Amino acid sequence: MNKRQGGLHDVRFLGEHKVIEIMRRFFEPMPTWVVPFGDDVSALPITGDGEVAVLKTDMLVDKTDVPRGMSLWQAARKAVVMNVSDFAAKGVAPKAALVSLGLPKRLLQTDVEEIAKGLNSGARQYGAYIVGGDTGEASDLIISVHLFGTAKTNTLMLRSGAKVGDIVAVTGFFGKSAAGLQILLNGFAASEDLREVLVSSVFMPQARLSEGLALQASNAVTASIDSSDGLAWSLHELARLSKVGLVISALPIASEVKCFANFNGLDACELALYGGEEYELVVTVDPKKWTSAEESVEAVGGRLLPIGKVTRDPQILLDVDGEKRAIEPRGWEHFKSPHCALR
Amino acid sequence: MNKRQGGLHDVRFLGEHKVIEIMRRFFEPMPTWVVPFGDDVSALPITGDGEVAVLKTDMLVDKTDVPRGMSLWQAARKAVVMNVSDFAAKGVAPKAALVSLGLPKRLLQTDVEEIAKGLNSGARQYGAYIVGGDTGEASDLIISVHLFGTAKTNTLMLRSGAKVGDIVAVTGFFGKSAAGLQILLNGFAASEDLREVLVSSVFMPQARLSEGLALQASNAVTASIDSSDGLAWSLHELARLSKVGLVISALPIASEVKCFANFNGLDACELALYGGEEYELVVTVDPKKWTSAEESVEAVGGRLLPIGKVTRDPQILLDVDGEKRAIEPRGWEHFKSPHCALR
Repeated sequence: MNKRQGGLHDVRFLGEHKVIEIMRRFFEPMPTWVVPFGDDVSALPITGDGEVAVLKTDMLVDKTDVPRGMSLWQAARKAVVMNVSDFAAKGVAPKAALVSLGLPKRLLQTDVEEIAKGLNSGARQYGAYIVGGDTGEASDLIISVHLFGTAKTNTLMLRSGAKVGDIVAVTGFFGKSAAGLQILLNGFAASEDLREVLVSSVFMPQARLSEGLALQASNAVTASIDSSDGLAWSLHELARLSKVGLVISALPIASEVKCFANFNGLDACELALYGGEEYELVVTVDPKKWTSAEESVEAVGGRLLPIGKVTRDPQILLDVDGEKRAIEPRGWEHFKSPHCALR
Repeated sequence: MNKRQGGLHDVRFLGEHKVIEIMRRFFEPMPTWVVPFGDDVSALPITGDGEVAVLKTDMLVDKTDVPRGMSLWQAARKAVVMNVSDFAAKGVAPKAALVSLGLPKRLLQTDVEEIAKGLNSGARQYGAYIVGGDTGEASDLIISVHLFGTAKTNTLMLRSGAKVGDIVAVTGFFGKSAAGLQILLNGFAASEDLREVLVSSVFMPQARLSEGLALQASNAVTASIDSSDGLAWSLHELARLSKVGLVISALPIASEVKCFANFNGLDACELALYGGEEYELVVTVDPKKWTSAEESVEAVGGRLLPIGKVTRDPQILLDVDGEKRAIEPRGWEHFKSPHCALR
């Protein structure tokens, strides 16, 4: 394909990951940065003794990120939680957030108040404060959150440190958000109790910050990523940046998802692997330090579930009763994936 | 007006400043912050010895901030420059920027490349680097830039320190962007040379970073603000936050603007005072240190123009040959001001 043809592809054809890859080529790299492009956060030195500023931005757009039925309070809170989840994956406590808001002109004062309350709630739940922002008119509701914190360089849990023989682990069971979205967007059925659990995982996502900070303190984690683009995508990213492979032998499917999938004739593995919009942490742990890692997460009320092993063979495989099949490198991707319904 | 009626006003009725005021009420204030809401940037402590993180976010939306004829490269560059200007006003060098991009699906790969080049160019012109970001689909082109730097708390030039007797000064002449927008949006006429100067001040805004850093080093500035919402608005903000008044005796109108206004039957004072989209600094200077301030700005190739005095009487007045009239507290305001033409 020649250059001219390539230049004529629109962003929907390219997809989010390719768009980011294209842009990066034109950004002159900072000589002193600590965490370059491609990890969950950016970081750069602020003192001579290894202290770094940790920065993250993630943007919520109502037409792709806010399913019908989600309140403005929930949407604003989610915009903060999405960013906190990336800090959690690096083991960094967020200190402050700034918010750029694009507001459709139809929004009322009560809507603005809902959004402000949701932002504050999302920040305070994780110990951060909203310290500034900007607003202007836009066709969509846009909530762009910018998160700031500090850390010691050598304590950041990057995507790139997994070693052959490490244990692959996650902080919870998967598939609930994907199932919740199937209920909200595609009209799938669930009992009232089940619906409540699955839909609330979409409307009220929880970042695993306590777990991330505990794992960082345990000094047992060799690589870490959050799972906002889906478990499969996170596994592929961890493996790619660590230059290893993974075999997953215990797929962590939530029991509610098995029940929901069974009732609706859906594939529970598919929901758990490729759903996205989940905020668990996916980590690799030095096996000699497993107990320390597990205990530190349990001490903050969380859980650490071993799901597989890091391998030399650079494939990402799911082992089902000894039969191995490839986990595909796909997940939720902006521009390419179907949109949430407009509010 | 009762609460219910107030809650039913939409954001266009409220205007940008009121929307921000409403939101702030719901943000729990950070106990340790250094520069709270209402200044050009936010700042919070990062070390025990007075070092602070300086944070700023400002969002560009094509339908309000990008007039027809402005390229994507220029729009992306401007999104960075808008933020750098706020750092300049505080005397802080930006180190790193993150960018959240909302991209309409019609954009092509070549458009994405243009945006990336513009972002990089805007950052590198002022010594900063793009270190991260996020992208997703949006109806408008949205470029939300987040800027980061560090400073010593006591060196920040805030909006709030002007003292009675201080000299009011600016880093350049005003009205060129307003005149340029009249040419671009309303079809006013200008000679080719004049058009080039006026339109380029819209398409290629320059942040006064060298001037801001020089003024900070001179230790002569008591208060400072950038003029992105217009000279009149900036004067009112400086006075309000410093609890003083101002008398402007030498309105700094660009000669090109006088010429343009004269030819088109427009009011040059109006263009210089209320136009907005200008990136000069508006500062107050301790009169005993005027020479030091002036020389430090000239040493970096800039100029510092005295335009008035700080007064006890809390009015913002324009003195024209001894006759004083009020400068109104208005300028460009999101939601309320007319939009730029869509691209």
